Amino acid sequence: MSLIVMKFGGTSVGSIDRIKNVARIVARKKDEGHDVIVAASAMSGETDRLIGLLKEISPDYSPREYDQLVSTGETASVPLLAQALLTMGYDAKSFTGLQIGMQTDGTHTKARIKNITGEKLKDALSKGTICVVAGFQGYNPDTGDVTTLGRGGSDTTAVAIAAAMKADVCEIYTDVDGVYTADPRIVKDAKKLDTISHEEMLELASMGAKVLQSRSVELGMNFNVDIMVLSSLEDKPGTLVTSKEEKEMERIVVSGVTSDKNQAKITILGVSDKPGVAAGIFIGLAEANINVDMIIQNVAQEGQTDISFTVPKTDLVKTMAACRTVAEKAGAKDIVYDENISKVSIVGIGMKSHSGVAANMFRALSDNNINIKMISTSEIKVSCVIEEKFTELAVRVLHDTFISEKR
Amino acid sequence: MSLIVMKFGGTSVGSIDRIKNVARIVARKKDEGHDVIVAASAMSGETDRLIGLLKEISPDYSPREYDQLVSTGETASVPLLAQALLTMGYDAKSFTGLQIGMQTDGTHTKARIKNITGEKLKDALSKGTICVVAGFQGYNPDTGDVTTLGRGGSDTTAVAIAAAMKADVCEIYTDVDGVYTADPRIVKDAKKLDTISHEEMLELASMGAKVLQSRSVELGMNFNVDIMVLSSLEDKPGTLVTSKEEKEMERIVVSGVTSDKNQAKITILGVSDKPGVAAGIFIGLAEANINVDMIIQNVAQEGQTDISFTVPKTDLVKTMAACRTVAEKAGAKDIVYDENISKVSIVGIGMKSHSGVAANMFRALSDNNINIKMISTSEIKVSCVIEEKFTELAVRVLHDTFISEKR
Repeated sequence: MSLIVMKFGGTSVGSIDRIKNVARIVARKKDEGHDVIVAASAMSGETDRLIGLLKEISPDYSPREYDQLVSTGETASVPLLAQALLTMGYDAKSFTGLQIGMQTDGTHTKARIKNITGEKLKDALSKGTICVVAGFQGYNPDTGDVTTLGRGGSDTTAVAIAAAMKADVCEIYTDVDGVYTADPRIVKDAKKLDTISHEEMLELASMGAKVLQSRSVELGMNFNVDIMVLSSLEDKPGTLVTSKEEKEMERIVVSGVTSDKNQAKITILGVSDKPGVAAGIFIGLAEANINVDMIIQNVAQEGQTDISFTVPKTDLVKTMAACRTVAEKAGAKDIVYDENISKVSIVGIGMKSHSGVAANMFRALSDNNINIKMISTSEIKVSCVIEEKFTELAVRVLHDTFISEKR
Repeated sequence: MSLIVMKFGGTSVGSIDRIKNVARIVARKKDEGHDVIVAASAMSGETDRLIGLLKEISPDYSPREYDQLVSTGETASVPLLAQALLTMGYDAKSFTGLQIGMQTDGTHTKARIKNITGEKLKDALSKGTICVVAGFQGYNPDTGDVTTLGRGGSDTTAVAIAAAMKADVCEIYTDVDGVYTADPRIVKDAKKLDTISHEEMLELASMGAKVLQSRSVELGMNFNVDIMVLSSLEDKPGTLVTSKEEKEMERIVVSGVTSDKNQAKITILGVSDKPGVAAGIFIGLAEANINVDMIIQNVAQEGQTDISFTVPKTDLVKTMAACRTVAEKAGAKDIVYDENISKVSIVGIGMKSHSGVAANMFRALSDNNINIKMISTSEIKVSCVIEEKFTELAVRVLHDTFISEKR
């Protein structure tokens, strides 16, 4: 017998019929003889409804009151799921974050988990009870205030509970059935991965794979929690995010190809090549709350250099405004931007021990007349900024080069 | 400076505009220099919406899960009210029942308050913060489970907080502006009472005055809490429910006249006049969950007697079914019922020391050809069952006799 944590998102519990469907999935797991803890989000639409009410009072709301209000979405969905299980004849109980001892710091609206005491969970599990826990919420033990973990925080709740309770696996049920080697809408022969490492998943998630909240993957990596990504609509195997079989996985060099069209490139021209200038620019952007992704600084010529970086396209206007201020301070000559770009990336833990992967990527792109505008590399990822119109072509070329042919 | 507890019901916080209106009323009180605790209900309709969702899963739901679910209505309304106060520039904080230490027994859906620790309230008040507390909810300190106090429990929350925190007054804001000597729709010159005793209010409330939940009045009586009933729509004096000025009030014999048309009379004929027979009948009815109001037993003749009692008209069918069983056991001859009846009552603490009040009531009714079918009296109330069609006439006659002419 093992302990399994199952997580269902807002869409999965979005109506009474869907809640009943989730109850059936949970009951099946219980029938297989496992101990089960379920983490659930608010019914879809509910969180937005509550935030809408608060914003109607003031767009500049108190983070503490926001948390007190918005957490009720999850607090309301879990007794409904518990009731659905009870009605099916299973013993079940709902719990708030506070009730399971989900202790966080006091950073309202994006609290970090510090500890899960979990006494009530242990007690209920020992009686064979299915525990249904409100996702997304915790509390600050110093003040007793309710906190929330930030949007998508229910994934984090589930993985944190799995870590604290030493669960055998944390199953995340979503509307996709796993993690693919590429977006199946772009690459017809994209394959569902049986396993992927946390590190690879982290690179994929932060690039917009949108399957798992990256914070939950990070947590899973730190506490060595196996995370299974599954469909809540179909009963079939998903993708296991694990770091337990790294050796096996090393045989695969590239696990996935992704792209991100929400990218814009900004270049600050003619910046003095002095220490502290780049720092000055990016501290200024950080203060304006702009999330900079790739950064490239050209080799200096005649004491001057150009600095290019990418930001989410949706932040372009804000970024240009902030840039004008910081560029002026840095004595820059001009600022130019390009929003017709996208980023394509290959991700694979096998890259660590395989040389020439990046070179192969550049060659595959150039063979197809795709010009590379920027490059950034990490231990397990290579990303290239290209013209936006070539995005799908590039993804297919890279999938053919690194994945399809190797299988 | 004094401490004031203010309570607002679901209609008063039923929309963002209304919440802002409530915030203005609260702010005025704070401006007058008082410490303020506010208790609020869920936004109108929200409790029913949540119960509807639960019943969609199962009409036979778990009381624990019901409480966990339904309490979110209040938990969600109080941060909205706190935010409205914050936006107006006042320091305010919302609290759940658990956060203020509202400890109850474990009787889900109708828990009884055992204690209010109130540390967080004291702490916040000492900093000048307006405390906005979720009504209707508490928690069981033995299990950590959320409990609710039963419908209308927010009145009880407010009075209990006023008692625990030794508030100077508990103000209950409603959609009426106070307690009247009679229903103004029936008696044109019905007067708003400036003061009324808890005991009188209790008799009025349980007869359907629907201004205050009777449990909250009982609590106010036990802990000597002054309760002010006020309109949340108009800024004018309401009615103070107090036991501090009993002597003054004794000069008024009858404070109010009420009527109740939701009455049916049942008579069990030819019951053996032996000890335990009446007990057998009413234990049987209690087991069928029937709330019996007035009971009259005729003088026995030839070892047999008739027993008459009244029940809510809405329970008549259920009562007749239960009666057939119990009447058979009691060896009764027949059962008859009359649903064309109503109950008119006069209530007044002054009756305790004035004789002849009941006699005057009977004379006033008979002078107007109103036949009395049943009578019941308590220390501060006389009730008569009459034909339903005479209800309004009887109320007017009694108001003229005991109230209008005395003023």
